[in-house]
Amino acid sequence: MNVDGNAYRSIWIDTNDDLVRVVDQTKLPFQFEIKTLDSAPQTANAIHDMIVRGAPLIGATAACGLFLAAKTDPSDNYLNSACHELLSSRPTAVNLRWALDRMYPDLLTAPVDKRQELARTLAQQICNEDIKTNSAIGDHGFGLIREIAIKNAGKIVNILTHCNAGWLATVDWGTALAPIFKAHDSGIKVHVWVDETRPRNQGASLTAWELNAHGVPHTVISDNAGGHLMQQGGVDLCIVGSDRTTRGGDVCNKIGTYLKALAAYDNQLPFYAALPSSTIDWTITDGVGQIPIEERAEEEVTHISGIDEHGETRKIRLVPQESPAANPAFDVTPRRLISGIITERGVIAATESDLLSMFPEFIDTPTL
Amino acid sequence: MNVDGNAYRSIWIDTNDDLVRVVDQTKLPFQFEIKTLDSAPQTANAIHDMIVRGAPLIGATAACGLFLAAKTDPSDNYLNSACHELLSSRPTAVNLRWALDRMYPDLLTAPVDKRQELARTLAQQICNEDIKTNSAIGDHGFGLIREIAIKNAGKIVNILTHCNAGWLATVDWGTALAPIFKAHDSGIKVHVWVDETRPRNQGASLTAWELNAHGVPHTVISDNAGGHLMQQGGVDLCIVGSDRTTRGGDVCNKIGTYLKALAAYDNQLPFYAALPSSTIDWTITDGVGQIPIEERAEEEVTHISGIDEHGETRKIRLVPQESPAANPAFDVTPRRLISGIITERGVIAATESDLLSMFPEFIDTPTL
Repeated sequence: MNVDGNAYRSIWIDTNDDLVRVVDQTKLPFQFEIKTLDSAPQTANAIHDMIVRGAPLIGATAACGLFLAAKTDPSDNYLNSACHELLSSRPTAVNLRWALDRMYPDLLTAPVDKRQELARTLAQQICNEDIKTNSAIGDHGFGLIREIAIKNAGKIVNILTHCNAGWLATVDWGTALAPIFKAHDSGIKVHVWVDETRPRNQGASLTAWELNAHGVPHTVISDNAGGHLMQQGGVDLCIVGSDRTTRGGDVCNKIGTYLKALAAYDNQLPFYAALPSSTIDWTITDGVGQIPIEERAEEEVTHISGIDEHGETRKIRLVPQESPAANPAFDVTPRRLISGIITERGVIAATESDLLSMFPEFIDTPTL
Repeated sequence: MNVDGNAYRSIWIDTNDDLVRVVDQTKLPFQFEIKTLDSAPQTANAIHDMIVRGAPLIGATAACGLFLAAKTDPSDNYLNSACHELLSSRPTAVNLRWALDRMYPDLLTAPVDKRQELARTLAQQICNEDIKTNSAIGDHGFGLIREIAIKNAGKIVNILTHCNAGWLATVDWGTALAPIFKAHDSGIKVHVWVDETRPRNQGASLTAWELNAHGVPHTVISDNAGGHLMQQGGVDLCIVGSDRTTRGGDVCNKIGTYLKALAAYDNQLPFYAALPSSTIDWTITDGVGQIPIEERAEEEVTHISGIDEHGETRKIRLVPQESPAANPAFDVTPRRLISGIITERGVIAATESDLLSMFPEFIDTPTL
């Protein structure tokens, strides 16, 4: 997407030096900085430290990390250990495994001296496909927004989203935000309620930043406010992303998503998850019981960063020193609360039969 | 309650100088400071700026403010304008009106030269009654916790609370926290999940501070985390306060309460509101439609305060300059999501018939 008139992806392999470049998402919204990754361990750290985040982007980053590994040392041993390191950088999103599964077997069967080039090709393929996938998600989701716009007879369509499932969470376009960008570009009047998304505030920092850059009207709210806005008729539609989706349609996404789904259901409002099929874990059916939920550092709850009145970045403590904090990073929204899933192939109900009828190639994937 | 071994109320009329003293809640959790109020306008500002907050304490503070007004000028005119100023300081909690309604007619019928003394007596009466009321709420709520402790066979009872309905929200004891203090004091093993309660973080700052001071085990969580904890069996009981309760049992409380009630309901967990009958607005039945929801400053969402690594208080910006924010301060939890209401007279269902059978003196209050 455009930043100050220049087209950017959130990650790319720089053809000048064969290094990987990413937008440093820990610096947004107040600084737009590009960071260079030159090795697989550094890539794993960038995923762990959330310099890059978002399930689709994590997958693409792991792919680029495996390319860097092949550059460092294309041996079986080294590639294997790089895969393990990348896989363990974050536990919840399934895209990490998906991306590595797509590259690793092919690399192993290729001659050692061809692996670097093959890894580059495969990683770039994954990145390019991600963009195509998200653009298709945008087109399908756009249809949903257009329907509401027609029903609303030209009134603003109010869409609530949680966390950041924009282009920064993918290579480009985004998942939940792709339909919004496309609707806005087509002239539909949209307004986005942006959940700040504590503790890391990806909504207030990344989603608000993206919407500003693209000129989409929006309002930042505390995570507590969405239910009230729905009760008062202020929300027409919710769209969120997904970090892992079960075969049955349960959606594991940023902590707090479940609460918004409950509120949408209680107010009979449509609640959609927009996701590339790469986030679907065809091996599991029960989201609440089977998806490992990452527990992140207490400090993300007890402290927060922002800029002071001089524009200097500062971290401050919010919670008394004596008080411990807990920080589960994701929750699971059961399929019964989800109106539908927006995939690259179309919009379907959050059920195993609908998912499998759209992705029949996974019918025989064994479940755990 | 005790602070460093000294017993404090959150507000008192100081008999040495007839001035009103309050704990400055904007300074907690990092500084414990007492602030002096010497006039009704200053008192109204203290309510508006949330130096004092919490429905019961707002009522007690208004009462003390009317005493200060009577001290300044006991004329009909001045008392009338002081009442108006105090009433308009915050719109949602009904206790403001309740406290002034209890004092103002009596003051007007008293001889002008007796009004200051009468106002002191009435304000002190309101403060003392508040303590008695909350202690009774604590006793009734304690019964609920004890039942769960017995069922849990000695395992820790995990209680989730939102915002601060502790002693700082009242004159002493608190509403939602009173049962927890009493359970802890009686030897029941309790652990409290403390919602940080964005945007003003009354949970992370005030509730965590109170629980630390009293030695009650607790963990601070982001507002997003509660639903997940309930799904995973980490919560036995939710107790919250109320800023205004309808005749029918709808509870208007800090923004985000509704989301936790939805999650408790979805997970078949008990969800109680603990409230003095002074928060019940007997004139209205429909919480969502009839309670005015205070819209507070955007800056409470876009900025946050805490301490830096040197212990200095700092305010930082979290949201991009270009992004607007919205800040509704309360939401309404419909009675259908509430397991029961803990009042000073006992625990009842959140229904008009149960409320009126416990408070029959309001049967004839006309509804709007």
